[in-house]
Amino acid sequence: MQNYKVIVRYDGTKYDGWQKQGNTADTIQGKLEAVLARLEGRAVEVIGSGRTDAGVHALGQTANFKLSEKRQAEEILIYMNQYLPEDIAVISIEEAGERFHSRFCAEGKLYRYRIHNSRIGNPFTRKYTWRLEEELDLNAMKQAAAYLTGTHDYMSFCSNKKIKKSTVRTVDTIQIERMGEEVVLSFHGDGFLYNMVRIMTGTLVEVGLGKRAPEEMTEILEKRERAAAGMTAPAQGLWLVEVEYAG
Amino acid sequence: MQNYKVIVRYDGTKYDGWQKQGNTADTIQGKLEAVLARLEGRAVEVIGSGRTDAGVHALGQTANFKLSEKRQAEEILIYMNQYLPEDIAVISIEEAGERFHSRFCAEGKLYRYRIHNSRIGNPFTRKYTWRLEEELDLNAMKQAAAYLTGTHDYMSFCSNKKIKKSTVRTVDTIQIERMGEEVVLSFHGDGFLYNMVRIMTGTLVEVGLGKRAPEEMTEILEKRERAAAGMTAPAQGLWLVEVEYAG
Repeated sequence: MQNYKVIVRYDGTKYDGWQKQGNTADTIQGKLEAVLARLEGRAVEVIGSGRTDAGVHALGQTANFKLSEKRQAEEILIYMNQYLPEDIAVISIEEAGERFHSRFCAEGKLYRYRIHNSRIGNPFTRKYTWRLEEELDLNAMKQAAAYLTGTHDYMSFCSNKKIKKSTVRTVDTIQIERMGEEVVLSFHGDGFLYNMVRIMTGTLVEVGLGKRAPEEMTEILEKRERAAAGMTAPAQGLWLVEVEYAG
Repeated sequence: MQNYKVIVRYDGTKYDGWQKQGNTADTIQGKLEAVLARLEGRAVEVIGSGRTDAGVHALGQTANFKLSEKRQAEEILIYMNQYLPEDIAVISIEEAGERFHSRFCAEGKLYRYRIHNSRIGNPFTRKYTWRLEEELDLNAMKQAAAYLTGTHDYMSFCSNKKIKKSTVRTVDTIQIERMGEEVVLSFHGDGFLYNMVRIMTGTLVEVGLGKRAPEEMTEILEKRERAAAGMTAPAQGLWLVEVEYAG
């Protein structure tokens, strides 16, 4: 068996997210597995670095899978792109060691959340941004982001109430910048809980709209309950940009 | 009657182009007129600076229309954007003199043609570019573009065989540049014939692929027949960027 690491780019608009859910659901994982099953003549499991929700996009989702025999990486890449739908593209593929696992070996992730912050919509980015007409106070958002940065228990920013594993994560940077008509939030950390980036974004937007004070972030973290934090920002503005591995 | 000048941005993917064609066709002009009819309680004609074909996009198409009474430009803009579909946006509106006519008064136009020139597709720009995997020789294309620049009879670059008016136009610049995975062609001129930008692009691409020599452009222009020029590049890569007016 030969293990391969792939980097995948996708427009999540039409999909029920990354993870396979039964036979009927249209998922990214399902599409990749279908193409590999065609190549191999048997079922092939594709392991992703993590799930992305329905409607979330990826510039560099990372996954791995094992093939029975060694094939040229280039050959697999061409084959996959030939049969994948146009809204999913394999942008790179390389041989990986037997023990490489895209989820367990991931050491860092970069997410971006794009807000179209203008009173006039943009026909070309409407599926890739969250549109907010009201002006955002970026300084207040940056102050709030500073409280959310560091190593914390992010339980309040997690939608999964039954989580049993540790909810402690390290978010080393939250960058917030205006880029033309957009406000872009970039989150870099060692890992993120279910819906964490979207809830952080929703909470930071509430600060930007003056509905919450930046200092409230400390209290939200301390409460360790979902209800303490703000809304979950819509899926379509979220982008998984890059997954990082050692070496 | 008060005349208004509007700048409109649209994703042309789902439309049968700019121009109204009977009642069933889904056109940009038709959508704008429907919203204005709702505002005015009567039919309102929207005059565009020119047609765009089915699938062609616009960042700054310009149009004008007359309303029975003077209204605040801002109020009309908000009203129109409220009722227009999300793939059409009015980005500016201003009062115009009685004699302003978006087609007759247009003095210049800027079109852009985007080619996604990479062996791997891009899920996010696939509806906004023409995808070509083969590498393009940009130097050859720039040489050919130089022959096509100036004041010429562009009959060979026009799809409309029955055209009776002059086919002489001035194209003052054709810029060709690589921007990441894209090759972008920008055409600026005083006006363009039916399909002219798409035929010029198709012909320049044939040069970039080594199928034609740059010097052939002179002969193509001299022949004054459509068959002499190259293919018509697909609609989805074409963008009407800006329409210019005096003053």
